[in-house]
Amino acid sequence: MIDIHRKDTIVAMATAPGTGAIAVIRLSGSNAFGIAGKLFKDHKGRAKDFSDANTHTLHFGMIEDEGKLLDEVLLAIMRGPKSYTGEDVVEISCHGSPYIQQKIMQACLMHGARLAEAGEFTLRAFLNGKMDLSQAEAVADLISADSGAAHELALKQMRGGFSDTIQKLREELIHFASLIELELDFAEEDVEFAGRKELTDTVAKLSDVIEALISSFDIGNVLKQGIPVVIAGEPNVGKSTLMNALLNEERAIVSEIAGTTRDTIEEEIVLSNVKFRFIDTAGIRETNDAIEKIGVEKTYEKIRQSPVILYVFDVSNETQQGLRNKLENLKSHIIPGFRIIPVGNKSEQHEMKKLQEEFSGIEHVIFISAKDKQNLHSISEALSEQVNTGLLKVGNNVVSNVRHHDALKKTQDSLKSVMKGLNSGLSNDFIAQDLRHALHHLGSITGQISSDDLLDNIFSKFCIGK
Amino acid sequence: MIDIHRKDTIVAMATAPGTGAIAVIRLSGSNAFGIAGKLFKDHKGRAKDFSDANTHTLHFGMIEDEGKLLDEVLLAIMRGPKSYTGEDVVEISCHGSPYIQQKIMQACLMHGARLAEAGEFTLRAFLNGKMDLSQAEAVADLISADSGAAHELALKQMRGGFSDTIQKLREELIHFASLIELELDFAEEDVEFAGRKELTDTVAKLSDVIEALISSFDIGNVLKQGIPVVIAGEPNVGKSTLMNALLNEERAIVSEIAGTTRDTIEEEIVLSNVKFRFIDTAGIRETNDAIEKIGVEKTYEKIRQSPVILYVFDVSNETQQGLRNKLENLKSHIIPGFRIIPVGNKSEQHEMKKLQEEFSGIEHVIFISAKDKQNLHSISEALSEQVNTGLLKVGNNVVSNVRHHDALKKTQDSLKSVMKGLNSGLSNDFIAQDLRHALHHLGSITGQISSDDLLDNIFSKFCIGK
Repeated sequence: MIDIHRKDTIVAMATAPGTGAIAVIRLSGSNAFGIAGKLFKDHKGRAKDFSDANTHTLHFGMIEDEGKLLDEVLLAIMRGPKSYTGEDVVEISCHGSPYIQQKIMQACLMHGARLAEAGEFTLRAFLNGKMDLSQAEAVADLISADSGAAHELALKQMRGGFSDTIQKLREELIHFASLIELELDFAEEDVEFAGRKELTDTVAKLSDVIEALISSFDIGNVLKQGIPVVIAGEPNVGKSTLMNALLNEERAIVSEIAGTTRDTIEEEIVLSNVKFRFIDTAGIRETNDAIEKIGVEKTYEKIRQSPVILYVFDVSNETQQGLRNKLENLKSHIIPGFRIIPVGNKSEQHEMKKLQEEFSGIEHVIFISAKDKQNLHSISEALSEQVNTGLLKVGNNVVSNVRHHDALKKTQDSLKSVMKGLNSGLSNDFIAQDLRHALHHLGSITGQISSDDLLDNIFSKFCIGK
Repeated sequence: MIDIHRKDTIVAMATAPGTGAIAVIRLSGSNAFGIAGKLFKDHKGRAKDFSDANTHTLHFGMIEDEGKLLDEVLLAIMRGPKSYTGEDVVEISCHGSPYIQQKIMQACLMHGARLAEAGEFTLRAFLNGKMDLSQAEAVADLISADSGAAHELALKQMRGGFSDTIQKLREELIHFASLIELELDFAEEDVEFAGRKELTDTVAKLSDVIEALISSFDIGNVLKQGIPVVIAGEPNVGKSTLMNALLNEERAIVSEIAGTTRDTIEEEIVLSNVKFRFIDTAGIRETNDAIEKIGVEKTYEKIRQSPVILYVFDVSNETQQGLRNKLENLKSHIIPGFRIIPVGNKSEQHEMKKLQEEFSGIEHVIFISAKDKQNLHSISEALSEQVNTGLLKVGNNVVSNVRHHDALKKTQDSLKSVMKGLNSGLSNDFIAQDLRHALHHLGSITGQISSDDLLDNIFSKFCIGK
């Protein structure tokens, strides 16, 4: 557990582990300049005092420890509060050998630095008012973002995002609460500082904004985690082969025995800036095999969670009428609004024109050959179309963090109680208490309300060095 | 192949690949500041002109491409010639997500930078006179150094090392050559500008220095590559088990069938700052199995290359007299000066005191249990002792690079011809020619003499970004 009240100097590797041309070691705290001064010599071998060095300057020289040269380095000096953490920060760019990195880290520790905990640099940035809590959380999201949409989402949040919206909501609530508290103070005189109608309107308005934020989570979360795309279909139509073709590697086990795929297999692919999570499933058919039965059950479960389903069929073993019936049946298993893309596989032995005629009554049908990797681009296109036609669109106020979503839901619950109290003419005591709860939950998003436990829980998920 | 005459602006990832808190992208060339200026906005969204920015300054802001925000970054500005390459250099510290790294790299390429070839930054440092060739080569060694000794060796060379010695040798040779050339110019007058005795002394002196450098290669190379330590002994005495115990992992195949290990297996371990290459071998015994016979042959080959041999025997199946005979036999296979450390294995079922009495006539014998990992530290100690008692000592002029070793040997050959010519009163024409060869080979070490092919060969072995 991080002790958030310690002001000592921390050190960590800031760059990815392993060998590179250079690596960066980061020091932050009141003694960062002092430790750097003890280790650093300029190119003429003279010690240097960084206590009066200009901020945002670079210094070329050597790192020595106990008279032994460790490396030639470039030192970056950033004076608090104009630094990432808001404290004095030194970044040491050394040669990127793991041996040197380790030796310089050891030297920093020997001279009084402490190994930083995961996320401790960003925690300090938060504690020193460089960013609010939701922005700090976005830093971790930004580093792990692996698609354009997730990156955009994290970057927006890191630069403020819905913090402003939350801030405004909170101010209105505080104003509102202060009126109620005032009435409490004058309870005996039975005055009303705010009309009940006006108050109800305000709460309703705030509640609407929060509701919009809450429902944005479905999109935000999916953009961050990847949009689930189930690959479904009868046994042996080539679902695993398609998955492999899409991944361009042999991830799923492919065989010609029907029912090979029992566990669902998931793989992520980024197409046009959006991450998709492809889910290969067991074939859907009547079966007596107990294990396979579980697989089919799992398939339906996955189908119910996926906004897009690729329904694969074997063009040689399917008729238009048969396919239509199966698609109708599948539709009964999915949530309205979710889409099914019919994919005719094994088209390599057929003429495309004949196939199109044969299945002309099936909307949006695609013909591919997973085996020969033919026409796979039409799957990417169909998926991109789903995204672009509004299935998923990133607005300005998109919540992608589970903790924020949770806090917003709790805020909403408290606001509903307030509303109920207002409508039923409940005493101000109760209304004031519900308001305080709402304020608490709303404040916890940006960290205006926080606890050591909460901070520890958030920052321990960071990588060390950030 | 690198075109060494191009002065365009190059870009590469400078830090290790993968996810970290931060990553650094490096630009070098005449347009580095221009490209940075096109991508960078300060925290107020204003563009910045770096053409008159102070050198060695840091700038906080954003990277934007086509109006789209990519990341918040810290830009380091280093103005040539005060930079690593000697050119204008910009280092972009961005968030360490592979996605962001890739996007910023792409933006740099879009604005006119070219992807750097392996070693191209260091090649430019060499071409711009920031370091000589042997120093540039030491940069690659420094990054790959994985033991204290190899690190010290590379760092010494990067900071000059024997460059000074080579430089002085070369100056003396040039002086010497100019006298000979002068005599050639005045050939008809038959004057002697330098006494033959004096010349012979100079060449002998230079030759001695070069000989010392050449013989330092054995140490230098071994420190860089690791000291070979052969694990030898009869079949089934536990050689592979010992190897595994030393490595603390199951690398070698262990079984109870004699003759399991047919190929020699090598593993590196760093003990007290020195890297050892442990070599597990096939058991030494009379055999009729053709494949095993090859293994035994290989063992003797390895033994002849290793300065230290761990001779393992089974304490339950060996007598002092038997061991003594076998050690004597082994000694006939090794180079004088090389050491054998007798290691009595399977000591777990015996009393240590009794074992010591039983083999009291065997010098430096060690008793261990590879199976129970007992007393293994005594092996480390014995090996460290070998290093410290002068088997391997790092002086100031240690050659560790094969190319340097080769050039020194060629220089030496040419000097020997010069000497021979002087002694046999050969005409100055021939002596001058041999001298020119010597100068050429000596100059190739530090790069005073170089060719595109040579440079390409050296720098293509670097990592990209250095």
